Amino acid sequence: RHDRLAKIAVAIADRGAELSDVATVRIDASHAVRRLSLRTLDDAHTERVVTALRTIPGVAVQEVTDPVLDCHRGGKIHQRSRIALRTNDDLRRVYTPGVARVAMSIRDDPTRALELTGIGNSVGIFTNGSRVLGLGDIGPLASMPVMEGKAVLYDELVGISATPILVDTADPGAFVQTVLHIAPSFAGIHLEDIRSPECFAIEDALSRRLKRPVLHDDQHGTATVALAAVIRACALTGRRLATACVGQVGLGAAGSAIALLVARYGVGRVLVTDPSPSAVDRVAHRGIRAASLETLLREADVIIATTGKAGLISPARVRRGQVVLALSNPTPEIEPEVALAAGAALAADGRSINNALAFPGLFRGALQARSCTITPEMMIAAAQAIAAAATDGELVPDVLNRGVHAAVAQAVESKAEEQGLRRTLVLDDCWTRKRAESGSESG
Amino acid sequence: RHDRLAKIAVAIADRGAELSDVATVRIDASHAVRRLSLRTLDDAHTERVVTALRTIPGVAVQEVTDPVLDCHRGGKIHQRSRIALRTNDDLRRVYTPGVARVAMSIRDDPTRALELTGIGNSVGIFTNGSRVLGLGDIGPLASMPVMEGKAVLYDELVGISATPILVDTADPGAFVQTVLHIAPSFAGIHLEDIRSPECFAIEDALSRRLKRPVLHDDQHGTATVALAAVIRACALTGRRLATACVGQVGLGAAGSAIALLVARYGVGRVLVTDPSPSAVDRVAHRGIRAASLETLLREADVIIATTGKAGLISPARVRRGQVVLALSNPTPEIEPEVALAAGAALAADGRSINNALAFPGLFRGALQARSCTITPEMMIAAAQAIAAAATDGELVPDVLNRGVHAAVAQAVESKAEEQGLRRTLVLDDCWTRKRAESGSESG
Repeated sequence: RHDRLAKIAVAIADRGAELSDVATVRIDASHAVRRLSLRTLDDAHTERVVTALRTIPGVAVQEVTDPVLDCHRGGKIHQRSRIALRTNDDLRRVYTPGVARVAMSIRDDPTRALELTGIGNSVGIFTNGSRVLGLGDIGPLASMPVMEGKAVLYDELVGISATPILVDTADPGAFVQTVLHIAPSFAGIHLEDIRSPECFAIEDALSRRLKRPVLHDDQHGTATVALAAVIRACALTGRRLATACVGQVGLGAAGSAIALLVARYGVGRVLVTDPSPSAVDRVAHRGIRAASLETLLREADVIIATTGKAGLISPARVRRGQVVLALSNPTPEIEPEVALAAGAALAADGRSINNALAFPGLFRGALQARSCTITPEMMIAAAQAIAAAATDGELVPDVLNRGVHAAVAQAVESKAEEQGLRRTLVLDDCWTRKRAESGSESG
Repeated sequence: RHDRLAKIAVAIADRGAELSDVATVRIDASHAVRRLSLRTLDDAHTERVVTALRTIPGVAVQEVTDPVLDCHRGGKIHQRSRIALRTNDDLRRVYTPGVARVAMSIRDDPTRALELTGIGNSVGIFTNGSRVLGLGDIGPLASMPVMEGKAVLYDELVGISATPILVDTADPGAFVQTVLHIAPSFAGIHLEDIRSPECFAIEDALSRRLKRPVLHDDQHGTATVALAAVIRACALTGRRLATACVGQVGLGAAGSAIALLVARYGVGRVLVTDPSPSAVDRVAHRGIRAASLETLLREADVIIATTGKAGLISPARVRRGQVVLALSNPTPEIEPEVALAAGAALAADGRSINNALAFPGLFRGALQARSCTITPEMMIAAAQAIAAAATDGELVPDVLNRGVHAAVAQAVESKAEEQGLRRTLVLDDCWTRKRAESGSESG
């Protein structure tokens, strides 16, 4: 009996899984019940390990649980009441008849909705699931766990009430129309995991039609945190940004936005490369120049890669002293350790250069200012705040450091104020207002 | 100085406001600061009273607050995380990379979204604000306080996560298209405060297109609680429903649904009346007969009125022993006290016959059963459960009695089971499924 745990450990190791914790639940003369914690690659791998354990004489597998699935069970968010309903007096205040006076107060002055409803502190997270993380086009329903994850970050990091909205269409026009039709429900419009190039037209149309912040996180959240990393990398390596060359490899949603924001911030040179001529044409202007991958990798002091192509950058191409940010998920263009071994001064991947550092504070700051938009200048202010919050040798700070998000929000709000954008957010920008003006509407 | 409070009380009474509480905040040799609680009719009335107080020598009004507005400030709901984010391990489980496995699990088997996201416990509350309470067409933005109130009731009474969605269009086709496009976000579709007759076409189209519960609360929530009151009224007055005559006055959204549900439940006779011939035609079949208002008021044992016309039923027309449910808000067709004084056996208005007794348990039961619909039989089961939960002389139980909602949910779930509807709810009923079948979509 005493060698069973050893046999179990060997069987686990033989199947390539990693045994971490062993906890004895119960032990008596004939049996021991233990909880083992394993790290496996996927469900199939888990299944292979469990099957192997079942073949060991005297060993029974009672239950297999999965802490990741467990924490998603029943969903990760819930729309909670902020008011306790205990008495009928509570009910009369919250619901009828009290609520009627509040509704009429907003009808008479729509700006009061910012004060008397939760709209002013709310963000809708809109996706059609057409390009999710490193998973591709998995559709809206399957993308819900990712969207709920974003909502968790909004609530936990900056106290914004964020609601995922799954938009069941691949057509950009129908997507825009749907968001416009329900836009009064939310002060901020967060676009997420929409494929390129459709994402550009969608963001552009919504930004033009709505007087409230619209932000495609895969573009601008990523660009903001990438710029923060570039600023910080130059500080850590003693480079002057004004004379540095930044090379952007890959011009999808994230890459295009990074190139444009870095150029706007102002660096010596920005080189870009992408296999698609139309993607290059979209960004190669105003100081941004197209280059071959070879030229870019040779000349850039800072390389940022967002190609989705694992292993694209071979160690042999890394120049001594370069900064290499290989951001593709789940597998980067070059592993940070490999880049460092090949002579890079600094290297990081998408796990640390995480846009969760940017979007919560960007929206928090914009909503605090009641700004109608999030400008590139506000993104640059956010990037500077992120870079300033990094300590020691960190390229960017820890996502869970609440102080960072407060600092980002503050920087964004101040910049909005400076740009004359305070109180420019308009909630009744669609039918409600059109109707008030004309007395009719066309649907 | 000592007569100032008396002067204040007189000034308040002279302006027709009601002084309830007086609390002394601070008192010293020269001043007393007191907090007075008043009941006024509206903001203008408050303003007149405050102006009168300011003219009393030696009296200053420091601050005017409004407990109803105060409880709405910042909104009444918030999308909360159900998971604490403390460590980077938490972050990896909730967000990337852990979430990727959960998303792929749903892509491979969409029914897993019911277990691994919050969708299965969620309701979207959709309105265009075209007919709000007794307020009329105030538009979507101004209706938000009412929608948040509904969401409060869902969370507090049955633990459902309900999100208001303001739909910014008066066009029924555009409304339907918008709901269809974002339907994957919610397991239940609650339609609210949409004007008649558009509400019928909207509910009908959505019920046909979606394999998840769709319910227009103003119709069926109201009908369910009205039926409960009819069942209970007959029990309290010793009438047999099988031979009773029920008269429905007014055939808007609520009235039509009440007439249809009462007839379906099975009573002796159902008479209806409405100034609009098309409204009468919509319901006058299957045992429901049209009648003049005079005939109806004379013949009905139970009168239900939902006309929006305050004072429509004069005391002279009330027959001894009748049951009078005058449900229009904010002012009923006849005040319950007036009806009782005129000889009614029982009388009630819309304050007690509140659809908040019905909709939380209807959706809770339907979602527990994972039913694709809420049938009239499920509404009848709910009405019976509501009636059974009333005690003593109550016509219907207290809305805040949580046990009532649990009983309603249980009755609805059992009926769904009995009707073979368990596990018929389908989450990927739109584009996602179409795409899986055909490999393309048409927007």
